[in-house]
Amino acid sequence: MFETWLIAPISALASLLTGLYLYRYINKQDSGTPKMQEISHAIKEGANAFLRREYTILAIFVLVVATLLGIFLPKPIWTSETPLQNISLALAYMFGAFCSALAGYFGMDVATRANAKAANAAREGLNKAFPIGFRGGAVMGLSVVGFSLLGISIVYAITRDPNIVLGFSFGASALALFAKAGGGIYTKTADISADLVGKVELGIPEDDPRNPAVIADNVGDNVGDVAGMGADLADSYIASIVAVMILGQALGHVEIPLVFAGLGAIAALMGVATVRVGEKGNPGKALNTGTYLTCILFAVLTYLASWYLGFDLRLWGAALVGLTAGVIIGITSDYFTSIDRPPARKTAEASQSGTALNIITGFSYGLYSVLPPLVGIGIASVIAYYLCYPIGVNGHELDYALFGVGMAALGMLSIVGMIVASDAYGPIVDNAKGVAEQSGLGEEVIAVTDKLDAAGNTAKAITKGFAIGAAGLTVIALLAAYHTTAREAGVNVVFDMMDPLVLLGAFIGIAIPPVFSAMVMLGVGKNANRMIEEIRRQFREIPGLKEGKEGVKPDYAKCVDIATVGALKELLPASTLAIVVTLLVGFVGGIKALGGYLAGSIFSGLLFALLMANAGGLWDNAKKYIEAGALGGKGSEAHKAAVVGDTVGDPFKDTAGPSLNTLICVMSLVASLFATLIAQYNLLQLLGFV
Amino acid sequence: MFETWLIAPISALASLLTGLYLYRYINKQDSGTPKMQEISHAIKEGANAFLRREYTILAIFVLVVATLLGIFLPKPIWTSETPLQNISLALAYMFGAFCSALAGYFGMDVATRANAKAANAAREGLNKAFPIGFRGGAVMGLSVVGFSLLGISIVYAITRDPNIVLGFSFGASALALFAKAGGGIYTKTADISADLVGKVELGIPEDDPRNPAVIADNVGDNVGDVAGMGADLADSYIASIVAVMILGQALGHVEIPLVFAGLGAIAALMGVATVRVGEKGNPGKALNTGTYLTCILFAVLTYLASWYLGFDLRLWGAALVGLTAGVIIGITSDYFTSIDRPPARKTAEASQSGTALNIITGFSYGLYSVLPPLVGIGIASVIAYYLCYPIGVNGHELDYALFGVGMAALGMLSIVGMIVASDAYGPIVDNAKGVAEQSGLGEEVIAVTDKLDAAGNTAKAITKGFAIGAAGLTVIALLAAYHTTAREAGVNVVFDMMDPLVLLGAFIGIAIPPVFSAMVMLGVGKNANRMIEEIRRQFREIPGLKEGKEGVKPDYAKCVDIATVGALKELLPASTLAIVVTLLVGFVGGIKALGGYLAGSIFSGLLFALLMANAGGLWDNAKKYIEAGALGGKGSEAHKAAVVGDTVGDPFKDTAGPSLNTLICVMSLVASLFATLIAQYNLLQLLGFV
Repeated sequence: MFETWLIAPISALASLLTGLYLYRYINKQDSGTPKMQEISHAIKEGANAFLRREYTILAIFVLVVATLLGIFLPKPIWTSETPLQNISLALAYMFGAFCSALAGYFGMDVATRANAKAANAAREGLNKAFPIGFRGGAVMGLSVVGFSLLGISIVYAITRDPNIVLGFSFGASALALFAKAGGGIYTKTADISADLVGKVELGIPEDDPRNPAVIADNVGDNVGDVAGMGADLADSYIASIVAVMILGQALGHVEIPLVFAGLGAIAALMGVATVRVGEKGNPGKALNTGTYLTCILFAVLTYLASWYLGFDLRLWGAALVGLTAGVIIGITSDYFTSIDRPPARKTAEASQSGTALNIITGFSYGLYSVLPPLVGIGIASVIAYYLCYPIGVNGHELDYALFGVGMAALGMLSIVGMIVASDAYGPIVDNAKGVAEQSGLGEEVIAVTDKLDAAGNTAKAITKGFAIGAAGLTVIALLAAYHTTAREAGVNVVFDMMDPLVLLGAFIGIAIPPVFSAMVMLGVGKNANRMIEEIRRQFREIPGLKEGKEGVKPDYAKCVDIATVGALKELLPASTLAIVVTLLVGFVGGIKALGGYLAGSIFSGLLFALLMANAGGLWDNAKKYIEAGALGGKGSEAHKAAVVGDTVGDPFKDTAGPSLNTLICVMSLVASLFATLIAQYNLLQLLGFV
Repeated sequence: MFETWLIAPISALASLLTGLYLYRYINKQDSGTPKMQEISHAIKEGANAFLRREYTILAIFVLVVATLLGIFLPKPIWTSETPLQNISLALAYMFGAFCSALAGYFGMDVATRANAKAANAAREGLNKAFPIGFRGGAVMGLSVVGFSLLGISIVYAITRDPNIVLGFSFGASALALFAKAGGGIYTKTADISADLVGKVELGIPEDDPRNPAVIADNVGDNVGDVAGMGADLADSYIASIVAVMILGQALGHVEIPLVFAGLGAIAALMGVATVRVGEKGNPGKALNTGTYLTCILFAVLTYLASWYLGFDLRLWGAALVGLTAGVIIGITSDYFTSIDRPPARKTAEASQSGTALNIITGFSYGLYSVLPPLVGIGIASVIAYYLCYPIGVNGHELDYALFGVGMAALGMLSIVGMIVASDAYGPIVDNAKGVAEQSGLGEEVIAVTDKLDAAGNTAKAITKGFAIGAAGLTVIALLAAYHTTAREAGVNVVFDMMDPLVLLGAFIGIAIPPVFSAMVMLGVGKNANRMIEEIRRQFREIPGLKEGKEGVKPDYAKCVDIATVGALKELLPASTLAIVVTLLVGFVGGIKALGGYLAGSIFSGLLFALLMANAGGLWDNAKKYIEAGALGGKGSEAHKAAVVGDTVGDPFKDTAGPSLNTLICVMSLVASLFATLIAQYNLLQLLGFV
């Protein structure tokens, strides 16, 4: 008999095949003049160099962790009667890391090819260039969905054990954390250094080929935004599916999350196929229409499936609640960052009174912006909870209620294929613009790429809010999964805020996201300092470079190298910290302390993720608003102040902010994985305190 | 028979009498040259103008709230059989506001007198000037302790009901919130505007008499730092005593917090009396020695009293745990802000690469700095909890455990008289320096006032950390008091993080401190913009002002007026928000949602309070480090960057950051006051959802 959950691997294969088709479509396009090919090639080389180094280091890290997992989990191998489980878990972990790495690699490969091709097509008009940019992004989106869902399906088909799938999820998340933090440090190192020396000190334009950091900057857009963002959403996506599988296990509903995820993949596939733009069309609108269409398709498909397969419709309702919340959160983030809205404009106006007021104003609006999404996530949880609570009977009310919260997270993330496609479109056309400028394609072509780029920014505002909202619901589902796992291990505790151990855990937990942010941001600062010295040195020592003499070229590779080595050096301690402190809190304080710790980290993690993403985005747009001619335009004092604000915002929005989602996800997964072990062995219990 | 708790009012009277004695001592000192008297008089006038306006508006606000309290609390007056209780509560509330205002007024009055006198005494040497500065601060410290403790004692003596004392505490806290937020907006409006136009645009020194904002700036130090800080600590102090009284009520221990507070007042009195400095002495060391001595005296006195009165020694232990935690937290804050330590120095070094890196680096170290205090507060709670848990028998274990946590908060705050004295010393000598500069007392005298000022900064680092730590433990005690009150109202709930209502409450709660911070910081920005225009206008329109022509004086009063009106306009919405949202969450979501809300607001409130206080402090010291000659010294590019960092840090450390303590205190008090009413009437319950 056909098992319903097989819809997941089938959709996954369909996504991968479509991705392959689009990949070949991109490859067939013309890459333009030799100059353009050369630039594109340099970006591709730099990106590959980064990934090669990163993956080499990560392979060692993954092997070490896999060995530890194999020895200790689910039970220490010397006490276990089923050592095969240990080996399965370790393998699932490695497989998860591998799938995540593969999706990142493919997405970046196509992105670094598509940039020059999109720039070249821009010579023939917007409607020729747009599909290349979007399909390039779609390859990433479809790879993320395909590899994630196929991986989960394979592990589940072999083991039929959601707890082993949890290992797969941990592998994917651990890799995502490195990709996000490493890529984020890389991209901002390059960006800040290029801007500070180029734009601020020397007054040459962005993406000017004389700037030694320009290739590193373009590479950064790819390793940070494409590979990193893809890994981030893949990580939330997998984690939400696994969390719901664990929550559904006791209720005999392991197949429901897989069915919903499979249908979501199909909806995204159809959504991607419909995105088009005419000669005079509006690419930003096209992207958003695609997103809304995907949402509607998902709602219809899952309704029909629920009806046909006899799932309780309230579970479907919970998934829709999540999806709706995601869209609303996305729209509110858009308000706080959009160039047309008061927050960015008032920040631009404040720049007239100096840099300090630009920073204070932008930061303050960033603080405001946390309210709607936090309330949105909270309300979505409450509705999903109470909607599904009555499904349960005979004491299963709470289980169904939490299952409903998980379904909301899943619903929000089900359309991830379309979200990643829109998002990855952004850096591709941003790079296309860079290639067009560096190879002197002329004002008209640059204007087309500008339009493409602006659409990318619009889409990005919504998808970023979406990603954080999704992560919020996912970690709540993971917290529930942790609680369930602990209960199954015989520790039925309440995470009571009046319990001092829970409180102590929470106090430590809320400090971790800020400390992590500090580590990666200082990493950017340290790295940027090294790179600034190098850029200044090149301008000083290479004769004719500053003046733009024919034939004189800076040493791009040196800057790429500095950014790469530095990023890898800075990311390891921060990421390791997250895992080690989580284990420390668990093995010292026990299940309750760890529960408080997770809750605390979720609170401050979401808070800072939203603050940093939105403040960064609005500083960026305040600057763009002035550059568009307002308040004195480029070169004015207000503009100088706004440039500093934008630079401060860069590590906020592209390094620390987006890594925090992944961070709290990894922490929650570690907690769930080790819950059984911690329930048995923890210091306070061994000392007889609790 | 002598009731032991009477030690509280007796100590309060002793404090007030000593304060009066010191007040007269200050008044007898010489105010120096006519020029100095004139400046001091202008500051005093400005400060009084601010307070008059502020108190006028607040009087209306207090009357409105008192009326509402009288109608609705403890029970709606039409349902109550004891309407006298409603009247008592309303009166206690007004009395609390009155006492807090009085302490603020006296403190500020003496501070604005002591500045010129200290400057004048500085002409005869450090050991003549120091006592005037310190005793000026001591008047504030002793008033805070005296009025607070006397007020509590009076209310308790009349009503014998800790819940009415809660009303007194709410009055004091509501006023503190206004004083802190209003004063904070005022002081930073003046400071930022004076710096931006004076130092940055025109390059004239700080405190230059040509700057039209110079008097407003000096006034700001008094209304923000003296009156505001005093109100802040008074508020935590009263709240901690009341929380422990409520927690102790069921255990028959209402007198213990009063005895401990009374002995703390005596210890502080003795500590204040011993602070001295010799001709070549180190004033910073003298202040810290006084603090440590007070701690030791408190430990000894309370040990003897516990032994004599037969209190369980574990309660004494809990108080000491809190006190120790306070000192440790103070010392770690010192590390993160001190001019001699890596965080400030590295931030200064980063300034060499531009403003953006100064901001990113300082902010990152600020993020780091939250870890030790949060862990410290958490550990102190756990120790106090488990220390006192075994005192309880017959199901009272939990009550004693929470009582222990309250005792820790009380222990930390018991020496508040000494803390406020050290802290208020800072702005007095800061002003003395300003007076010395403006009246041209010569290099040598200014060097003496510089030394006095530096000591103030050292003391301030410790007392600020102390204040935040104390607030942290106090709000935990208040959360426990809220829980106890709800339980007594018949709603015995668990604040379980897996409960979606608690979670929704928490998500809203964590958003409130950021939103409040945004409101007051944007208030500063808006206000500063108005004032910058005015300063520029005066320099433009008053002939000879810029050149410093003899006899030409700027219009100081106009700047004072702008700062005053603006601050009052900006503070009302932010402060009202805190109260209204708290009531909204309670009356819609009920006891559980409100519990989660309080926990959430405590988490993010402490987080941002620490981040903002410490980041602001270290930006300030990074600038001072460069001004002392490092990295190119004054006028270098690094210095310019550091000045911007300092300006960003100003509203962080002096407006938003310190208001957050008070904010979460007010929110917790509102919750406790309304707990009984909310337990009966809330929307979700009325609709039958819970």
